[in-house]
Parts: sequence; structure tokens; C-alpha cells
Amino acid sequence: MSDAFPAVAAAIKQVLEGQGFTRLVGAEVVSIEPGVVVMALDRRPEVLQQNGLFHGGVIAYLIDNATTAAAGTVIDRARRTVITAEYKINLVSPSIGDRLTCRAEVVKPGRSLTVVDAKVFCRVDGADKLVAVALATIANLDRKPGNEA
Amino acid sequence: MSDAFPAVAAAIKQVLEGQGFTRLVGAEVVSIEPGVVVMALDRRPEVLQQNGLFHGGVIAYLIDNATTAAAGTVIDRARRTVITAEYKINLVSPSIGDRLTCRAEVVKPGRSLTVVDAKVFCRVDGADKLVAVALATIANLDRKPGNEA
Amino acid sequence: MSDAFPAVAAAIKQVLEGQGFTRLVGAEVVSIEPGVVVMALDRRPEVLQQNGLFHGGVIAYLIDNATTAAAGTVIDRARRTVITAEYKINLVSPSIGDRLTCRAEVVKPGRSLTVVDAKVFCRVDGADKLVAVALATIANLDRKPGNEA
Amino acid sequence: MSDAFPAVAAAIKQVLEGQGFTRLVGAEVVSIEPGVVVMALDRRPEVLQQNGLFHGGVIAYLIDNATTAAAGTVIDRARRTVITAEYKINLVSPSIGDRLTCRAEVVKPGRSLTVVDAKVFCRVDGADKLVAVALATIANLDRKPGNEA
Repeated sequence: MSDAFPAVAAAIKQVLEGQGFTRLVGAEVVSIEPGVVVMALDRRPEVLQQNGLFHGGVIAYLIDNATTAAAGTVIDRARRTVITAEYKINLVSPSIGDRLTCRAEVVKPGRSLTVVDAKVFCRVDGADKLVAVALATIANLDRKPGNEA
Repeated sequence: MSDAFPAVAAAIKQVLEGQGFTRLVGAEVVSIEPGVVVMALDRRPEVLQQNGLFHGGVIAYLIDNATTAAAGTVIDRARRTVITAEYKINLVSPSIGDRLTCRAEVVKPGRSLTVVDAKVFCRVDGADKLVAVALATIANLDRKPGNEA
Repeated sequence: MSDAFPAVAAAIKQVLEGQGFTRLVGAEVVSIEPGVVVMALDRRPEVLQQNGLFHGGVIAYLIDNATTAAAGTVIDRARRTVITAEYKINLVSPSIGDRLTCRAEVVKPGRSLTVVDAKVFCRVDGADKLVAVALATIANLDRKPGNEA
Repeated sequence: MSDAFPAVAAAIKQVLEGQGFTRLVGAEVVSIEPGVVVMALDRRPEVLQQNGLFHGGVIAYLIDNATTAAAGTVIDRARRTVITAEYKINLVSPSIGDRLTCRAEVVKPGRSLTVVDAKVFCRVDGADKLVAVALATIANLDRKPGNEA
């Protein structure tokens, strides 16, 4: 980890937590390290679907944000920025529990595209159960007006 | 469309609009027809990311809900229910605009899996621009305790 | 279609049909138009799996080639080239029949990424049945040594 | 590993290596353990694309077969069989080298669906380089006439 990384992590955290939708959802940034971002969310009625599970859209939100942020830790942020190109999500178990945690990790950084995977866990009776896995492609763009993402 | 379909559509609409997360996000069900569900969402600061675009997680939420609901229109609802297995989203243009609309359509219904595609449009200056495309796999489950999804 | 397109189409067809793997598989280029490429393959024992269906890997091969080629029809080929970033395939019906046809069509061309969808049909008793759908992301690269793909 | 597993592994290997397409491609089954299948392929002109890389369709073939076979190791084979529902592939580096190896591993076995991930490596100068990652959904079917896959 370079000397400058704590400032990078702080900048990314500030962007994520300042998003209108992040505040609405009530998610938090748990940790940001080079290539790895963890975000989490506590259960409350506003983030559930009709059967009391966390809504799939909430899981997708965490994956969308955490994978993009993880890709953002491995670029030269002075010159470049990141934007989500695509991702795939598999929901593998019902997300019944009291807290969702998403861990996104860069699989392969690239010049123009970074591939990131993610796992989402749901805490049930104190233990984390795997509820979703994802694979994302994040594009790196040159920073200039119109490419701020 | 069978005589019973309006009742099916009303039941699906009630489930979707009763979800805690749907109310938080502020989405609406625009229409439900056999094999096709349209949902939409108006712009407000709470559903945006840091640059004023609709958040990718909001787009994913619409796709998650609309694709699952579309699959739910083509099953025998007395005996079966639907649950999202997986989906893939491509974000193809910045979603700057004042309203998001997601149209999900069944590509291939199946005994145990239904494949659904989705397109998301963002209204800019009165015209709808394509901002995302998706492909989803929805599982059909027998209705019984523990399979209510 | 520009006056130059027939030459572009001929160049793409030559590349595809000259690939070692295309010759091994025995696939053919049916048509190349701006944004749309169709490839096909006749049934023979060497392209099947254990139950007499076309092998999933053959379907993936057609999708891989046809989506990339379709993206290649919408770039400035003097300056740029294309390379597959990723794709997702849903196999929706057993591919029992005598001929596979894959039709790939550009959904959204972009500066650095083009999104393409594909449908694969299997001819059964003279009619084409949908057996697979796909969604692909193709990267556009500047032509230079090392980027020839 | 149960006492019966070597017989299961032998049966799966025989199915894979007996496929017409596997023989055409020239792939081999390297190992089959509970939840993990490794397949490989040596470089020869017939499996390449126009620039001397392994063809993307070859990489997809390995992923298709190895993920399905991995899912097949975690079911009750007397009563059930497996069929590929869908997969997503990211090609992360040019596959220039002399041997491709695909390692597929079950992420989450399920009653009706098993999720499997895969990594593909290309041997360059004696070292394995990551060239592709994938995430697959494999369906479990009851064994009966028409479901043999």
C-alpha cells in the first residue's frame, strides 16, 4: 500500500457516502484497501421485499457500488476515473438476516477495463452466509469534462 | 390474455408496490401484461449518484423487479412462484434525465427457468434514450412453506 | 450502408473463415451487414455432446465470433480493431436439430465499448427454434502493434 | 470424498472425453474431485484465431464443459443429471501460450441450481497466466427420458 493510499481511500469513501442513493439506502463503507472494497447495510423494513428478505435490488446496489469502487482503487486517479460497464449477479441463497456485507475484489486490473468479483454475505444468527456472487467489468476513462463518473 | 389475467396483474402489482424497498425507491408499476412488465421512477436527488446520474443500483433494482414480475406472469400462480436466479446488466449510456423506465419481456418461458430480457430508458428532453440492457434467469418454484418468494 | 461496406464485409468474412478454429468447427459466415452478422453450422457428430445435441461450446463459439464481428462492422477499421471483453449466454432449449444459426446484432455502439446481443436458432423439421440468447461487450482498441485482435 | 467418488469421477470423465466435440477440440480431463473439475488443451493451429491466440470459443468450450461437470460431482447421480442454464465469461488477457487449463469450482450447490465459477489459465514460458474468469448456473434435473444431459 503506497503512502498515498489512505488519502485515496478517504476520497472514495467520501464519494460513495455522499451519493443520494447511498444515503437513502443507508449503506456504509466498511473498508477500502488497494483492490478490495467492503460495504454493508443493516436490515430495516425499507430495504426488504415482500417476504422479509433483503431486496435483490439492494444486493445489486451494494455490488454495483463496491465493484466500481474497488476498480477505482487500482487506477491513477489523477488522470483517470471509473464507470461501470456491466455486471452479472447470482443470487444463491435467500437473504434472510440482519446485515448484508458485500466484499468486492479486483480479479484483473487492465488499461481500459478492470474485472472485479464480489461476494455478498447475510448475517444470520451471528454467522455470515453467502447470498450472492457477482462478476463485474469496470471501464477506465480519461478524466475530462463529461467523463466524470 | 385470459379472462383471469387482470386479477393476476393486480396481484403482482400489489406485491411489487407493497415492497418496503419499492416504496423507499419510489418506483411505480406502469403496466403488467402477459410476459411484459414495465416499471418506472422519476428523478429526485435520493436516487442519484455523485454526478447527477440515476444510480446504477436504481437501474438494477428496476431490472431485478421487472424481470421477476414478467416471469411471474407466465406461470401457474396457484401452484408456483418465482425467484430471481441471476441477471446480467450492461450500462450503455449515462442515465441523465428526468425519468427511468424499465421494460422487461419474457424471451423463453420454461418449466423450471424463465429467461427474460430488459431494456431501461431514460427520458431526456422528452425522448427515451436506451441506458441499460439486461438478461435474467428466473426460477419457478413450487408453492409451499419456505418457497414463498 | 456506405459504398465501402461490401469491402469491409469481405474483409471480416475472410478473417473469420480463415481462423483455424472456424475451419475445425466447420462454421460459415452467412451474412455481414452494418451491425448484424449471421453465422451457421451444420450438424455432424464432431460438434455434438453425449446426447446428440449441439455442444454448448459450439453455441458459445458462434456467439463469440458473431458478436465480435458485428461490433467490428460499426468501427472505423482503418484506425481501430475489436476484442471480446465478455459475454453471457443463456441456453434456453435443447439444441437438437440439423443446423445452428447465430444472429448477432449491435444494441449500442460506443466509443470504447460496443454492446451486442445474439440469438441462436436450431433448425428442427424445417423450422428455427430459439436455443440460446446472449449479451456481449466488445472493446474497441486503437490499431497498433500488440492490439491486433 | 466418499468411497464411491472415484467411480463417479470415472463416469464423468468418460462422458466428457466421449463427446464428439471434445475429441474434435482435443481437450483432456485433468482431474475430477468433489466440486472441482480441471480440463486442459494444448496449442495447435486448429484451436487458434487469426492472431495466434487460443480462440475465445475454445475458452468458452472449456468453461462450458468444466463448470457443468463440476456441478455434476455434487448431485445424486442415480436420480439427477445436470444441464447448463447460463454462464458469463470475461476474457481478461490475450491467451498467447502453449496450453490452456480451466479450473471450475462449485461456489454453491443447490437443490435445483448449482453456481460454479471458473478460471482459465494460459501457460506462457512455463508460468500460468490468468486469461479468463467465468460464473455459471447449472440446473439439476430429475433423470428421466428426455432429461438426459
